[in-house]
Amino acid sequence: MENQILFSILIISIVSESIAGALSAGRKGMDPIGVMIIAFVTALGGGTMRDVLLNNFPLLWIRWPEVIWICLASGLTTILIRSYINRLLKIFLLFDAIGVAGLSIIGAHIALDNGHGFTVATISALLTGVCGGIIRDVLCGDVPWVFRQELYASVCLLSTGLYIALTYTSLHPVIVITIVMIFGVSVRLLSLKYRITLPVFLYDGSSSD
Amino acid sequence: MENQILFSILIISIVSESIAGALSAGRKGMDPIGVMIIAFVTALGGGTMRDVLLNNFPLLWIRWPEVIWICLASGLTTILIRSYINRLLKIFLLFDAIGVAGLSIIGAHIALDNGHGFTVATISALLTGVCGGIIRDVLCGDVPWVFRQELYASVCLLSTGLYIALTYTSLHPVIVITIVMIFGVSVRLLSLKYRITLPVFLYDGSSSD
Amino acid sequence: MENQILFSILIISIVSESIAGALSAGRKGMDPIGVMIIAFVTALGGGTMRDVLLNNFPLLWIRWPEVIWICLASGLTTILIRSYINRLLKIFLLFDAIGVAGLSIIGAHIALDNGHGFTVATISALLTGVCGGIIRDVLCGDVPWVFRQELYASVCLLSTGLYIALTYTSLHPVIVITIVMIFGVSVRLLSLKYRITLPVFLYDGSSSD
Repeated sequence: MENQILFSILIISIVSESIAGALSAGRKGMDPIGVMIIAFVTALGGGTMRDVLLNNFPLLWIRWPEVIWICLASGLTTILIRSYINRLLKIFLLFDAIGVAGLSIIGAHIALDNGHGFTVATISALLTGVCGGIIRDVLCGDVPWVFRQELYASVCLLSTGLYIALTYTSLHPVIVITIVMIFGVSVRLLSLKYRITLPVFLYDGSSSD
Repeated sequence: MENQILFSILIISIVSESIAGALSAGRKGMDPIGVMIIAFVTALGGGTMRDVLLNNFPLLWIRWPEVIWICLASGLTTILIRSYINRLLKIFLLFDAIGVAGLSIIGAHIALDNGHGFTVATISALLTGVCGGIIRDVLCGDVPWVFRQELYASVCLLSTGLYIALTYTSLHPVIVITIVMIFGVSVRLLSLKYRITLPVFLYDGSSSD
Repeated sequence: MENQILFSILIISIVSESIAGALSAGRKGMDPIGVMIIAFVTALGGGTMRDVLLNNFPLLWIRWPEVIWICLASGLTTILIRSYINRLLKIFLLFDAIGVAGLSIIGAHIALDNGHGFTVATISALLTGVCGGIIRDVLCGDVPWVFRQELYASVCLLSTGLYIALTYTSLHPVIVITIVMIFGVSVRLLSLKYRITLPVFLYDGSSSD
């Protein structure tokens, strides 16, 4: 039951990250192969980075190559339905919110399962949740927006913290996942709706303040 | 025989990718150490990425460090003969075409040899063939041109597809490699000559089309 | 004794690289979470890359997660004391010089210890010494300055060359480390003071010289 829920969340995340990747590639005027490569690295780059650093082999997409086709199909579909994307924006943002909360849980879950402590579990959640987007932005020539906007990393950290805390309770894993998903998705959607951001740190490198 | 041919192709690819890396570094006004670092990552970054993701250790350049010196020598030579580079452009483009077709074969061959299926073999070929150039462009501050121009990734995909298809036939491996090399080099050179590109996907993020 | 010295050098390097990372993030107006992520990857990215490529698992920060907190604390402290940073610039540059010389020694030491030859040891030293800064610059959207300025990579190479040469002598490891540290820090500080740089290689891609 727990695994089926995590698996469903994983698929939703992969689809929504692939769409996000394809849209970024579209903003840069890439060709279809570029779009599909960016969809692939956005969706699977974070988990791949996590597994390389935790030395968790073989990687998901090598064990289960069907996941690559999900990325390519999502990327290609995004190109085909681009005229309707804006009308679907709210559904996409919901999927994306499910993605960030879900990938945080998956990342933390995998690290705790491998016997790591809570610091490494938090890094694992961050890698899973935000690294795909960082690689996408670097490949598209942008400063990764995760460092600047919209509490994306903060939602990831808060969801991970709540998840790790709840794993110490006697709650059933399915209840824990449900609580964290509702919490993470709500925080993400509220931060988008009210445009909440953290104060930035500006250092101009010359003045003394 | 098959291995000697693949090895010769590998050396040609490493030399031509090192030169391409050194020229990119030169366009950014890097110092000689920067030029040699870029030559090294352009030539060996793709294969390194592939081996890290497929968990194929030790890496080529650790098993056989002489290959590092080939990169550095090629990078340094490029600096020294820069006045003649443009006159050598056609030879360089031929080497580069041999590189893209050859690295695709090598990447697919290694993955199939390790027991992976054709989806993973295709990703492995792409990683081997185009990833070095992507890392080079990211380090030089450019949006990787592989996503935008000149069918580089397409030639890689087509060559890989043909190679995988031919491995299912009873043709001798040397014949298969020869056919794929002729095909890949021709497609690459023709796409350059006639400036063939794929249509791009443009998404401006605001309008509904 | 040797290990305690290398450990102290490692901590100084991690703190100074975290500060350097946080300052770069501040120049880009990142939020506190972005600042801490950049501090972390600047300080630990080089060693992580080295260990992934040399297949040295588990990684330092997984074996010893306290090091993550050192990075975060250094990054956060940099934000808090930003008004005083410029007055502390000389101390910071000294720490940074200790970092580049020290990380070169650590990188070469680990590779030699794992039975690699001097070419791989030099690459290992470069990865340890400069890769964190390269990842930082890529994430901040800059062309990595290590390719262009201030002999940072050259100091790393010179220190590594001297260290490897001295390991062939009968000198006690502590003496070797002391000599290389004094040499590396001096070269680094002198190159900054006299603004020594290498001549650059400029290739404009069109003219024949």
